[in-house]
Amino acid sequence: MANWGNADTLAAYKKMLSLKGQVSLKDVLDAKRVKEFSVPMAAGLTYNYAAKEVNAQILSVLQELADEAELVAKFKELYEGEVINTGENRKVLHHLLRGQLGADVIYEGNNLRTFYQTQQDNIAAFAEKVHSGKITNAKGEKFDTVVQIGIGGSDLGPRAMYLALEGWARKNGCLKMNAKFISNVDPDDGAAVMQSINPAKTLFVLVSKSGTTQETLANELFVKDYLKKAGLDASKHMVAVTSETSPLANNPGYLASFYIDNFIGGRFSSTSAVGGTVMSLAFGADVFAQFLEGAHEADKTATNADIKKNPSMLDALIGVYERNAQGYPSTAILPYSQALNRLPAHLQQADMESNGKQVNRFGEKINYQTGPVLFGEPGTNGQHSFYQLLHQGTDIIPLQFIGFGDSQSGEDVVVDGSTSQKKLCANLAAQIVAFACGKSDENPNKNFPGGRPSSLIYGKQLTPKSLGALLAHYENKIMFQGFVWNLNSFDQEGVQLGKVLTKKVLAGQIDGALKEYASIFGI
Amino acid sequence: MANWGNADTLAAYKKMLSLKGQVSLKDVLDAKRVKEFSVPMAAGLTYNYAAKEVNAQILSVLQELADEAELVAKFKELYEGEVINTGENRKVLHHLLRGQLGADVIYEGNNLRTFYQTQQDNIAAFAEKVHSGKITNAKGEKFDTVVQIGIGGSDLGPRAMYLALEGWARKNGCLKMNAKFISNVDPDDGAAVMQSINPAKTLFVLVSKSGTTQETLANELFVKDYLKKAGLDASKHMVAVTSETSPLANNPGYLASFYIDNFIGGRFSSTSAVGGTVMSLAFGADVFAQFLEGAHEADKTATNADIKKNPSMLDALIGVYERNAQGYPSTAILPYSQALNRLPAHLQQADMESNGKQVNRFGEKINYQTGPVLFGEPGTNGQHSFYQLLHQGTDIIPLQFIGFGDSQSGEDVVVDGSTSQKKLCANLAAQIVAFACGKSDENPNKNFPGGRPSSLIYGKQLTPKSLGALLAHYENKIMFQGFVWNLNSFDQEGVQLGKVLTKKVLAGQIDGALKEYASIFGI
Repeated sequence: MANWGNADTLAAYKKMLSLKGQVSLKDVLDAKRVKEFSVPMAAGLTYNYAAKEVNAQILSVLQELADEAELVAKFKELYEGEVINTGENRKVLHHLLRGQLGADVIYEGNNLRTFYQTQQDNIAAFAEKVHSGKITNAKGEKFDTVVQIGIGGSDLGPRAMYLALEGWARKNGCLKMNAKFISNVDPDDGAAVMQSINPAKTLFVLVSKSGTTQETLANELFVKDYLKKAGLDASKHMVAVTSETSPLANNPGYLASFYIDNFIGGRFSSTSAVGGTVMSLAFGADVFAQFLEGAHEADKTATNADIKKNPSMLDALIGVYERNAQGYPSTAILPYSQALNRLPAHLQQADMESNGKQVNRFGEKINYQTGPVLFGEPGTNGQHSFYQLLHQGTDIIPLQFIGFGDSQSGEDVVVDGSTSQKKLCANLAAQIVAFACGKSDENPNKNFPGGRPSSLIYGKQLTPKSLGALLAHYENKIMFQGFVWNLNSFDQEGVQLGKVLTKKVLAGQIDGALKEYASIFGI
Repeated sequence: MANWGNADTLAAYKKMLSLKGQVSLKDVLDAKRVKEFSVPMAAGLTYNYAAKEVNAQILSVLQELADEAELVAKFKELYEGEVINTGENRKVLHHLLRGQLGADVIYEGNNLRTFYQTQQDNIAAFAEKVHSGKITNAKGEKFDTVVQIGIGGSDLGPRAMYLALEGWARKNGCLKMNAKFISNVDPDDGAAVMQSINPAKTLFVLVSKSGTTQETLANELFVKDYLKKAGLDASKHMVAVTSETSPLANNPGYLASFYIDNFIGGRFSSTSAVGGTVMSLAFGADVFAQFLEGAHEADKTATNADIKKNPSMLDALIGVYERNAQGYPSTAILPYSQALNRLPAHLQQADMESNGKQVNRFGEKINYQTGPVLFGEPGTNGQHSFYQLLHQGTDIIPLQFIGFGDSQSGEDVVVDGSTSQKKLCANLAAQIVAFACGKSDENPNKNFPGGRPSSLIYGKQLTPKSLGALLAHYENKIMFQGFVWNLNSFDQEGVQLGKVLTKKVLAGQIDGALKEYASIFGI
């Protein structure tokens, strides 16, 4: 068993804190460093950290921290099925969704890799029947649209992944169905989506692990009401993704049910049936399989004890250095890829819900900062928005850029001697250097202090495989940061109080300020 | 002339700093406070600050700060046409787009209110011709879609406003055209939009004040290339929104041109022709006029010297207290309204680009924190995402909730005894109290410390008028904060360096680290 201790009990962590403010980026960033501060990732991606405020000494201490915190050993315990989610007494098995990293994980006599694989096979078979017209609507017409009903992890990850591959799939002739998403309990969300589709040719994927999520059940009924008014039989238009013990399981009200279990956390469920159903329907099961392949490759690199061969661990440790030694309270994710326009929203959940905590995994209060605020928008859009503050604001915000040499669509124009794709990449390269090195100017308003650290993840093109690797990179980064901070990154007790109070409001069991706030809305 | 001095030269500012940590929300928040800490806004909205960490003493000092910083006098100088944007030697006149607040603003012999009004009239007349079929495509068919091509302020605000009213317009029978937006230089952005429309029935609105924006010109050609391949005459499908001196003005390549001038900053241009063209085409000019009416009403309340009668000034000052006295580095915008799902992205630009600065309006370095990081997603979605960190993370993030009693669509279902709209509002009320008061628990992992401040803007329904008031509230809040911090909130020098370096990359005039980064992408 690894030693699960708080970060501030580790000698390497204390050493790391003493190495604050050592690197002046504008003094060190040169071509040689850009070449050298680079680590290959899975699926042809690369992690470049030349513009991060680290040097050989800091990297060496980060390796010590990785070793002392036993990060790789902890990961092994996790993927081999130890109960890492202690608060909820659960294993944490999203890696097993995409491949076997270690020993078999057996639970109640079942090999869980087999269970997950069976679900993928069932989804693939179902999707094939939909695509081939073996499963159709009552008139025998093919379904052309899939609408996912879910919230949080049942929405943000699958939506971001779908959007990331929609253009790629169109270009490659495998956009089999368009996908839309209903998440918010605000009825205007469902109303807008229902207005934009032809319900007669739409399959709905209802996603709730527990089968009790308030928003999702409300939206299920909202959709069923719509279908009924349109003279359609909802049970022929809806599939469920849930756990085998939920009220949605084996329910004749659905065309089919696909399963996850308690060992798949919502925000880590994009590679489970939660993401797999909508992606297999939209793009075909083979595309989803490529996505899993990329994720599994990334998981394998995450087992390496050497930080220079483990990009997600290195990324995690640099983030810990930035948060705890440098004291930066937030971080921005900046994909230079319109297809990744909702990746920041997904990572906002994945990261902030996992590591936005102030107690350790044993429920004891800790004395250091944990997960930062995470936000972001695609570039170049962000350049015309909040980059002003990133360049010249009074706080330093570490940045993570993502970019690809080729577009997905392949459609482009030449204006002023360059394609749009080339302009996109030129902007990205220019921003990294502008942030790191700044530019002196006699006019302080035109002065750029520089010293704004960033990393870059890049590849040739955003494909199902590289997307899977990118997703798993972040999942593993978050996991490693949680290990360093000694958090349980896999529960979310912080969302419970709101749920309890909401029930009280709806039951009318309130007084004081809450009653007054509710009365504002006529409740 | 008002006295434009740095915040830390003001006695009230120093007094404010001494009032750190005075209010324990869980001790003070009760029904009486919710009733009393409330200020009417324009267009039926209300600003409630009961869950902010202020008390009578702090409010009194904030009033002193407003007085000593001469905030209302500075606003008057601004709307009466003084050169407030000193760096660029420009007036700041977005308020004049929606009404006359003070004396006439004359520039080079022209009354600028008349100029802006004329543009609105021209847009209204054009939109009416499009809607009535007097202006059609070459086949005589009506246009049914409008696509805006623009980036930054020419995208984020108009897009957020369109999305905010799309469902309302559908419900009220005035969704005359669907709108889409192309912004990113990433060619996959344009490709995806072009795939989703019928170009033969689409009008394109090309928006660039200077007529030289790299991304927008690239996307113009991208679209023209598409139209040409479809056998369509681009000049019959495209209108321009630009300044009268730009290459796009009076250009026979466009069906029509509508104008703004240098006194309308991009991020404050939603109420100009930049937002007016797409909104008038999508919803009709009368809807756009109601939107302006709401904004003008909000502007009028912003002229009041009493902070209890000036909600945008009060909101601004509480934000300054949170940033400079309490030391909170970021803030979240949380609209409980799916229609406002892109408002946070717009405000991210409006706020961070305006006040993310470290020099004062005279170009001198300042010694206090300015604009915070701003982020957000709609509720209840955010509850299933990053709220974990907001409730139990190690940093405190001030929050701004927005909510409405009624949905826009009016479509709803009853599940477990309540409508979805009621659930939405119940969640909102519950979150405010959960954040402010927390809940003690013996298990530290289930303990909620509370003390997380929030404000609430609420109204009966999100309509064109209340949306206008909401937008202007934030514009004015940002302006007042800039006044307190003594910033020029209306330039954006921080975006220049990236542009310069990008040009060098595209021209091949690079060496060192930048050359190495460019080579990663084959440049």
